[in-house]
Amino acid sequence: MFERMLKKVLDANKLLWKYGLVTYTWGNVSEIDRLTDYIAIKPSGVQYDHLSWDDIVVVDMDGNLISGKLGPSIDIQAHVEIYKAFPDVGGVVHTHSPWATAWAQSGRPIPCYGTTQADCFFGEIPCTRKMREDELGKDYEKNIGKIIAETFKDRDPMAMPSVLVNGHGTFSWGVNAKDAVHNAIVLETSAALALRTEMVNHGVMAPLDDIMQTKCYYRKHRKHGHEEQVMSE
Amino acid sequence: MFERMLKKVLDANKLLWKYGLVTYTWGNVSEIDRLTDYIAIKPSGVQYDHLSWDDIVVVDMDGNLISGKLGPSIDIQAHVEIYKAFPDVGGVVHTHSPWATAWAQSGRPIPCYGTTQADCFFGEIPCTRKMREDELGKDYEKNIGKIIAETFKDRDPMAMPSVLVNGHGTFSWGVNAKDAVHNAIVLETSAALALRTEMVNHGVMAPLDDIMQTKCYYRKHRKHGHEEQVMSE
Amino acid sequence: MFERMLKKVLDANKLLWKYGLVTYTWGNVSEIDRLTDYIAIKPSGVQYDHLSWDDIVVVDMDGNLISGKLGPSIDIQAHVEIYKAFPDVGGVVHTHSPWATAWAQSGRPIPCYGTTQADCFFGEIPCTRKMREDELGKDYEKNIGKIIAETFKDRDPMAMPSVLVNGHGTFSWGVNAKDAVHNAIVLETSAALALRTEMVNHGVMAPLDDIMQTKCYYRKHRKHGHEEQVMSE
Amino acid sequence: MFERMLKKVLDANKLLWKYGLVTYTWGNVSEIDRLTDYIAIKPSGVQYDHLSWDDIVVVDMDGNLISGKLGPSIDIQAHVEIYKAFPDVGGVVHTHSPWATAWAQSGRPIPCYGTTQADCFFGEIPCTRKMREDELGKDYEKNIGKIIAETFKDRDPMAMPSVLVNGHGTFSWGVNAKDAVHNAIVLETSAALALRTEMVNHGVMAPLDDIMQTKCYYRKHRKHGHEEQVMSE
Repeated sequence: MFERMLKKVLDANKLLWKYGLVTYTWGNVSEIDRLTDYIAIKPSGVQYDHLSWDDIVVVDMDGNLISGKLGPSIDIQAHVEIYKAFPDVGGVVHTHSPWATAWAQSGRPIPCYGTTQADCFFGEIPCTRKMREDELGKDYEKNIGKIIAETFKDRDPMAMPSVLVNGHGTFSWGVNAKDAVHNAIVLETSAALALRTEMVNHGVMAPLDDIMQTKCYYRKHRKHGHEEQVMSE
Repeated sequence: MFERMLKKVLDANKLLWKYGLVTYTWGNVSEIDRLTDYIAIKPSGVQYDHLSWDDIVVVDMDGNLISGKLGPSIDIQAHVEIYKAFPDVGGVVHTHSPWATAWAQSGRPIPCYGTTQADCFFGEIPCTRKMREDELGKDYEKNIGKIIAETFKDRDPMAMPSVLVNGHGTFSWGVNAKDAVHNAIVLETSAALALRTEMVNHGVMAPLDDIMQTKCYYRKHRKHGHEEQVMSE
Repeated sequence: MFERMLKKVLDANKLLWKYGLVTYTWGNVSEIDRLTDYIAIKPSGVQYDHLSWDDIVVVDMDGNLISGKLGPSIDIQAHVEIYKAFPDVGGVVHTHSPWATAWAQSGRPIPCYGTTQADCFFGEIPCTRKMREDELGKDYEKNIGKIIAETFKDRDPMAMPSVLVNGHGTFSWGVNAKDAVHNAIVLETSAALALRTEMVNHGVMAPLDDIMQTKCYYRKHRKHGHEEQVMSE
Repeated sequence: MFERMLKKVLDANKLLWKYGLVTYTWGNVSEIDRLTDYIAIKPSGVQYDHLSWDDIVVVDMDGNLISGKLGPSIDIQAHVEIYKAFPDVGGVVHTHSPWATAWAQSGRPIPCYGTTQADCFFGEIPCTRKMREDELGKDYEKNIGKIIAETFKDRDPMAMPSVLVNGHGTFSWGVNAKDAVHNAIVLETSAALALRTEMVNHGVMAPLDDIMQTKCYYRKHRKHGHEEQVMSE
């Protein structure tokens, strides 16, 4: 009965693979149905090239298995917390993508150095604080989600659809799974560009002017509806 | 009736994709027919792997739609300004290619450190000035084109067929769409080589001697006709 | 009679190729059968794209040829020493992979900057001491194995399944050949991430907190059995 | 009548392409028949993916066309000078490969930081001096060859089968065209590793000990005959 949802989530997971954002199984995409609050997510421990649509698992907001033969991704609790904290979010992605993860490991937010980033992200892409020892216990994955929510307490998650998790990797989100993957790709592209920009400049530099950042962001987000916007040039 | 032109523009757009100069839809190629001043350009919001020749759009110099079911690329006004300012140009390319965009984001022109660049570009590849607040309004795309023309007021655009747009990306041009894409590829190659050269040298270094730059450029541009020249080793 | 073993070793060697860890023939994978102490290994001087399962060579712990038309990889003695020193190891990989080899050439261990590394490796990935002149004679390959064992005299090889060989390349191991290749891929990923992390940080930085490293490592290694664990997200 | 020779040279040119050492037509491979002193070389201005064996051109040592419908590569005179200066050389490759060219542009020889390089090259890979103004005239390509010979007046070209051409690109050679391409690939790999090694080390470092370099080089070059040696792990 979830076939359409499972296929969408499979396609989004495959897209993550196609764009080189994952190695082995280190990443996962989910999508939520806001009517039932059911979440479809990649199963745990299956490699991308072996994944078929009926491997995708459906769980509810409490993590109970609704459909599927396999267990959900170990990161499911982080996804759940994001869906709880950000009600407009319809899809979530977790990656250890090669360039953005380097920023996450250094604990630095990604400055906005150009329009590639500014078209999709309003401002610098934030990095969560380090986790405390008491957050590393059995609720570790849940606490990753809570720390992301904490990082966004004064930010609009729909205008900043990605975050770096300190010492770990990335989470991105969007109106659905495909849109979340798109944002993860822009994040990775922005992360690579920002590092190369500092290399060309032989050091950190001033970000793009605020007025330019504002112009870029609203040029993309006013003209079209949301789904179309993030995909257009 | 535009089938041949549309197919040439499609092929040039696909070449951009094949050489890794674009992600998603972040780039576009156009070609002009100088008899009618009709411009064929990639449509807005279509991904490269879904693009077919009859998606390509034809507009006139005022941006009026002449042929096509879709809207032209959002960057069409920048293309138009380039065609107006540089009468020998027959094709234009816009990219956010991974290495050249890092130079654009740092606002630095690309020094000519070797013959790979010198064979195609006469001197360092310039970067536009930053845009002023009054240039960011509804004529934003048109003003990108105007700023490129301003950057070339004392340069020969046919001897320097690329420019970095400050904080944004790249534009390249040539006698036709295919030639413009070729120049965009040499730009990207030169940008990557120049950054790695400074890394090997642990800092900025002196460019190739003027006499060597002149030798290289004219060796390529005297021997053959133009179309052949840019493609030969 | 060794068909199943030879095919497993062939598959593991092909995986090394697929993940870009080898160029030409610069790398090899072996697997040991602990009942007979027979070792199946890639033959010497055959390129990966020409390799078939019956090219794989079987030798005993003294290097005597048990099965096969070709000679074993020149590195066989290093593999043998690793199997002797680490009794739980079932598979060994040698590579000159592009990023980890840069660390080996610099003689630096790879600090643990993030969970990608911490999930698989308990602590920083060590680098062997330089070889002495008297170790470069006819027992050169054997001495590489001995130096690896020496580097691990106070370490658990199953909690640190890779090593950098000073000025040379990498060795990884695991419960079988496939697991060893998995660890070589995590090593290469960690090496690339660590270098980029220092680039983002404009210098060396503090590693991930010990408590976080411990959490990550045991999260992966307690939950699942070993084979499954190393493959799960 | 040259079919076998042409096919070998075609294969070597395609190998250059397969390993990512050329973009467009910026590179060429030749092989000499030492009985007739006829040289088979890639034609000028043909892209790699369009190249077939009967496009390959045969010329004599004076550059006279012996066979072929197209003109020889513009770099033929540099190849000729290398064949004249190094009588044991049977194949020559010219590239602008992405990492080695960065070293050539910086004018720095590539230090020997590890066994990947030491197995194939005896010592640091040299860079030619800059060309003088009087060398840039009509004999430019010939002078590139002469400057390479000058760089090797105290070196054995068979123990150092590559050179960086200052501000330009690379030449490699070997006993035949395929061997020359192999050496160009090791050069490119070594160039990338050396730059990354300095990045890991945050600066220039001491090369591999002489005794280790000698050991590596002779381990590979004594054990096997030459053709086999360069291909073995």
